[in-house]
Amino acid sequence: MRAVVFDEGVSFRASHPDPEPGEGECLIRVHLAGVCSTDLQIIRGYMGFRGVLGHEMVGTVEAGSEAWLSKRVACEINFVCRKCDMCLAGLATHCRSRGVMGILARDGCFADYLIAPEHNLHEIPDQVSDEEAVFIEPLAAAYQVPAQCRVDARSRVTVVGSGRLGLLIAQVLTEQGARVTVVGRNRKKLEVCEKLGIQGIHLDDLVARQDHDVVVECTGSPAGLPLALELVRPRGTIVLKSTHAGAAEVDLAPLVINEVNLVGSRCGPFGEAVNALARKTIRVAPLMSKTFPIEDAEKAFAAAASPDHLKVILAMNT
Amino acid sequence: MRAVVFDEGVSFRASHPDPEPGEGECLIRVHLAGVCSTDLQIIRGYMGFRGVLGHEMVGTVEAGSEAWLSKRVACEINFVCRKCDMCLAGLATHCRSRGVMGILARDGCFADYLIAPEHNLHEIPDQVSDEEAVFIEPLAAAYQVPAQCRVDARSRVTVVGSGRLGLLIAQVLTEQGARVTVVGRNRKKLEVCEKLGIQGIHLDDLVARQDHDVVVECTGSPAGLPLALELVRPRGTIVLKSTHAGAAEVDLAPLVINEVNLVGSRCGPFGEAVNALARKTIRVAPLMSKTFPIEDAEKAFAAAASPDHLKVILAMNT
Repeated sequence: MRAVVFDEGVSFRASHPDPEPGEGECLIRVHLAGVCSTDLQIIRGYMGFRGVLGHEMVGTVEAGSEAWLSKRVACEINFVCRKCDMCLAGLATHCRSRGVMGILARDGCFADYLIAPEHNLHEIPDQVSDEEAVFIEPLAAAYQVPAQCRVDARSRVTVVGSGRLGLLIAQVLTEQGARVTVVGRNRKKLEVCEKLGIQGIHLDDLVARQDHDVVVECTGSPAGLPLALELVRPRGTIVLKSTHAGAAEVDLAPLVINEVNLVGSRCGPFGEAVNALARKTIRVAPLMSKTFPIEDAEKAFAAAASPDHLKVILAMNT
Repeated sequence: MRAVVFDEGVSFRASHPDPEPGEGECLIRVHLAGVCSTDLQIIRGYMGFRGVLGHEMVGTVEAGSEAWLSKRVACEINFVCRKCDMCLAGLATHCRSRGVMGILARDGCFADYLIAPEHNLHEIPDQVSDEEAVFIEPLAAAYQVPAQCRVDARSRVTVVGSGRLGLLIAQVLTEQGARVTVVGRNRKKLEVCEKLGIQGIHLDDLVARQDHDVVVECTGSPAGLPLALELVRPRGTIVLKSTHAGAAEVDLAPLVINEVNLVGSRCGPFGEAVNALARKTIRVAPLMSKTFPIEDAEKAFAAAASPDHLKVILAMNT
């Protein structure tokens, strides 16, 4: 099969070995896959991953469990043991021996075929297109924010970062009733934000007054957290979404002095994301930048890394 | 009056100007004062403070409000406006225009006399000695931990740092029913810990398994947080007490991946601390290292900075 493999560098392989589903697993023919900032971080060394990249996908089950055959699906990315203390405590995304699709010890979806446990699959309703379904994984990650940190109509929220994830999170928190502002440095993305009906502020125009109840940091850059600490009010909450390869300098004294709550946030509820796309309450079309055939993966990564692009999609089998 | 002043360096002054109480303030004759790690950090540049140091004290009101005259008191350290958005929201310790005794814009208690707003005073019951009362401020800071992060008999808690504050926090959380372990690098302090009936583990003997519900970081060192991230379980809580001058390198990817909750924690409820000392449920006597006359402040600071000492006390008027 065709696949995009990371191993020292990134390369497109025209004939990578076909994967075989094991017990309880399905073979999924991938239609489309989304390029995520995490993929770009992995290429810079984050997680020390080697293998087929990719963890945002939509596809059709071609082999494995009878119940899933021919179904159009999205797939949760944590492949878990269902036996360890975390799994038994209801924290399966934190399984002690998990693999993570295209991120940790398990091949990803930038390929013709993906193997995944049937427990990980979510059927996609007809009214959700393939192009929309690619957003299920990052949209689930966006829904993790209100799952960890309740917001309501009184909540003043700033999303720091006007990228793909930031614009999803801003929509999700607006849907929950919060008063949301997005801070970014790219005027084109801020225009997209305004089109979604959400206030966008350019970094140069920002006056930080430590007066926001919740700040969601999803810049993907070490500069995001110090800015978030300038924006959040005493006893407020910062939700940290950014991961990046390596340590960074940060002065956490303001966190202690202002008794700020800093919450790490990763994968979220797929069901919520599927439902939101089905009922059309979250708009992802304005976030689609460009689709590349899988053979042009390197060009797709370059586009995804450019500040002017939002979601870049790889097409395998459409 | 005699005073210990920080201004470029630390110096004992035999004749510093006497302070005068303003409207709503009291003049307090200081009996004893405790040296805190924050004092040592201030001397290294933290907060950019200049003035009389010190914020842990016990003394007697000599002038000001009639109601407080001749009372033996401890004094809350945040001098607040009672008018700003934080004060009106019940978050007075985060007052937007606060001064902080011996830390920010207000003279501290390493002197014969201290000026403080009468609203800040707490009367000390007779059954609490002066030596014990010096611990009210740090013990209040310890009680802030369960106020921010509920623990119960199911909670596995590690306190990282076997210093003055760590041993107070460990006692407070044990009192709340949690299963507490203290991790430290100083065997003498770990012996004190064991004498208090709390399990102590030397850093060299520690096996970190990311399995503790709550980790309280109070080492005062940038090395504490990375260790706390190795100890806390996924979705667990780290309470961060340490402040230090300047930024430090830290890799926050484990915080995001494990969805850890990092809570900054500062000043706490004085009432709880006074009550605990009065009902003798928290033992502070084993934490008293040495008392120096105010004239020997420099020696006292050197002792407080030495790893073998716990609480060092300055005596003004006993």
